[in-house]
Amino acid sequence: MPIPDRFNEPLNRQLQALISECEEPLLMEVMAYAVLGEGKRIRPKLLLAAYEAVAGEVDFTNAPVATCTGSATAIDFACAIEMIHAYSLAHDDLPAMDNDDMRRGRPTCHKAYTEAMAILAGDGLLSLAVEVMARRVHEGTHEQARTAQALYYVIKAAGVNGMVGGQVSDITNEGKPINAETLAAIHRRKTGCLITAALEAGAILGGGMAEIQTMTKLGQVLGLAFQIRDDILDVTSTTENLGKPIGSDTKNQKATYVTIHGMAAAEAEYARLSHEAFNIVKEIECKTSALRDLVSQTIKRTK
Amino acid sequence: MPIPDRFNEPLNRQLQALISECEEPLLMEVMAYAVLGEGKRIRPKLLLAAYEAVAGEVDFTNAPVATCTGSATAIDFACAIEMIHAYSLAHDDLPAMDNDDMRRGRPTCHKAYTEAMAILAGDGLLSLAVEVMARRVHEGTHEQARTAQALYYVIKAAGVNGMVGGQVSDITNEGKPINAETLAAIHRRKTGCLITAALEAGAILGGGMAEIQTMTKLGQVLGLAFQIRDDILDVTSTTENLGKPIGSDTKNQKATYVTIHGMAAAEAEYARLSHEAFNIVKEIECKTSALRDLVSQTIKRTK
Repeated sequence: MPIPDRFNEPLNRQLQALISECEEPLLMEVMAYAVLGEGKRIRPKLLLAAYEAVAGEVDFTNAPVATCTGSATAIDFACAIEMIHAYSLAHDDLPAMDNDDMRRGRPTCHKAYTEAMAILAGDGLLSLAVEVMARRVHEGTHEQARTAQALYYVIKAAGVNGMVGGQVSDITNEGKPINAETLAAIHRRKTGCLITAALEAGAILGGGMAEIQTMTKLGQVLGLAFQIRDDILDVTSTTENLGKPIGSDTKNQKATYVTIHGMAAAEAEYARLSHEAFNIVKEIECKTSALRDLVSQTIKRTK
Repeated sequence: MPIPDRFNEPLNRQLQALISECEEPLLMEVMAYAVLGEGKRIRPKLLLAAYEAVAGEVDFTNAPVATCTGSATAIDFACAIEMIHAYSLAHDDLPAMDNDDMRRGRPTCHKAYTEAMAILAGDGLLSLAVEVMARRVHEGTHEQARTAQALYYVIKAAGVNGMVGGQVSDITNEGKPINAETLAAIHRRKTGCLITAALEAGAILGGGMAEIQTMTKLGQVLGLAFQIRDDILDVTSTTENLGKPIGSDTKNQKATYVTIHGMAAAEAEYARLSHEAFNIVKEIECKTSALRDLVSQTIKRTK
């Protein structure tokens, strides 16, 4: 999935550098396994694209990551968002939760290692993500108030009224007949909140306080579109293409946008949300095309 | 265990209030179960005592917790430390880890609920702890730089080179013959780091930058003493008294200070460390007796 390729190298390089800070060899290895695979990196790229939209183009490849510039802070926050995403996958895949064996075309974390290490690598990734962001706030040389706000938005989105709460609602509703409203609330928290926070944090770190509200709106629309796309692909794609078993929602007796509204309505809503996302991006006077390109490619994704 | 009783009520009240921010009913219930039991609350009390040592006595019972005073920030950080401690217990007790059925005289989290909920309540508690601290930093009306520093110290102590790394080393060394040095490194990270961070964060929030180093030294000595006491009690106490099965270290084939050095050496080292802890407290010109009382009662604890 060729989202702005110039973000790939700096993201992967800094993720590797941050994971390498871990001094416990096995923990470092399992965290690297969980986060350095073939992920789409949508959330961190949204953060960098939102940053560029308000701050202008950055050569992230040559960004001096060891320094306290805005771009170096943005890269660290982008990596933190990806670590939070990876921790949630490692825990969601556990036998006690979704019990999935494959992820991104490889055995899931607890299959490749052990359940204990999958739990601890998840705990480690969440802790390291916060440590990386908190270090930037503590160093404080790049706009302490702004960096503190970005940290707060990210951790709130990942927390009990965001991603974790959404996952609880998701697994406790397995096998139950739920209505469209409950499903929307699960989607919003489990997927939407972190996508929204990525966009908000990017704008905040770039100094675009006026753009926060528009980013929130974009995140909500894009998050829902993203989840509906997931639900459609779980029915129409192949295991080879997705790198994880298709039909897993059916296996786990999970209600999805497709099971509740039907495939035709899901595709229509998906088209409507895609159109809306483009219109919202137009409202922002983006300084680079990265955000528009990224929204376009996120929407057209086939895996 | 009658550690300064005046800290109990404000701590329990604010823990309850913070947990109640969770809007997902089952998640709130399991987090409350994990954190609101009969804990000794040693870490949060150390934070408050260190705060008072440098800032002077506070009537925490009547502290306006909704405001942004230093004492309200200290209470929130103390609750965050306790939530981090409770999350680590919920995860450590899981079948994939230490597989413990009893904790604080009650069934462990996964026994009372499910494994999935114990994992998610742990994730929720860590997230909420960070959210509570990050909110104080973001609000920023109480010394933003200082609050940011305290957050960084706490999350670093809980992270991959602190508590999580220590737990990985602990479980991967089960059943293996380890030397005194490896055991000390496990103790230092698994127990010592968070106790040290509680003392450091208390001093930082109270404005006692000159006291940080002494607090670090006190935390290291007290953390080790605390762990040796745990190892001694695991052999000499009763299940009724501890509220968890004695002999659990033997069951899990874990090396302890007692198995490596013998009971007599463990008791001698414990006495030496206790003495040292008192001497360090004397170095700090404490404005209240809370820290001295707390160290005394922590050292004399029988459960």
